[in-house]
Amino acid sequence: MGVVRIDHIGVAVSDLQEALKVYRDGFGMGDVHLEEVPEQGVRVAVFHVGESRIELLSPLSPDTPVGKFLESRGPGVHHVALGVENLGSMLEELKSKGFRLIDEQPKVGAGGAAIAFVHPRSTLGTLIELCERPKDKG
Amino acid sequence: MGVVRIDHIGVAVSDLQEALKVYRDGFGMGDVHLEEVPEQGVRVAVFHVGESRIELLSPLSPDTPVGKFLESRGPGVHHVALGVENLGSMLEELKSKGFRLIDEQPKVGAGGAAIAFVHPRSTLGTLIELCERPKDKG
Repeated sequence: MGVVRIDHIGVAVSDLQEALKVYRDGFGMGDVHLEEVPEQGVRVAVFHVGESRIELLSPLSPDTPVGKFLESRGPGVHHVALGVENLGSMLEELKSKGFRLIDEQPKVGAGGAAIAFVHPRSTLGTLIELCERPKDKG
Repeated sequence: MGVVRIDHIGVAVSDLQEALKVYRDGFGMGDVHLEEVPEQGVRVAVFHVGESRIELLSPLSPDTPVGKFLESRGPGVHHVALGVENLGSMLEELKSKGFRLIDEQPKVGAGGAAIAFVHPRSTLGTLIELCERPKDKG
């Protein structure tokens, strides 16, 4: 049990093409996967980096979570996703310790992963996603 | 050549003891390493997570880079460090592509790594550290 990796970092960007110039053309990250996720209101560019991913998130409209984040904070890291081995029991433990959870139960995220967000008020301002991928099941 | 991993995420926190309650006691990250790095003006708590690390950075005084970051943005992700295989040639390439670098030449960071920071104006607001560890030498 516990945190086994940084699963991904979600970076809010206004302009996905500009962001590709930085990460793909500048840092030389190859094999970008582009995807639109309407239920989260974002267009996403995903790069695989070692055992982790970097996800560039551009809002589909200003009234989405990432759109509002850009409006109030500007572009930058939107959330950090930690890969865990047993999400259900970690959520129970966090609740018992008084953590405020955005998702009290795991929900299904991209690629069939079970995910849940912890409220940044309980994590000193950083939006943390917990993410359990099928192969990590403890 | 290229980016081989997320080396670490640096998270700015006001109070290291409060932050340990979140990451060590809440998320169950064990084996924290505590270190004071006067030249960067921080006290650091380091957790190993898979092939990456999470570094909690608390300022030694308000007039340090992390102190100023906390003052203007509040606690949260301060920088993302990408592990690369050949830092020297990547810096040359970034310069030739017009990227603004904080460090034009690699400098020595913690653990003997060669590091350099890219200016957030060239990376859409995210402070990116590039980091080559001895074993990654290309």
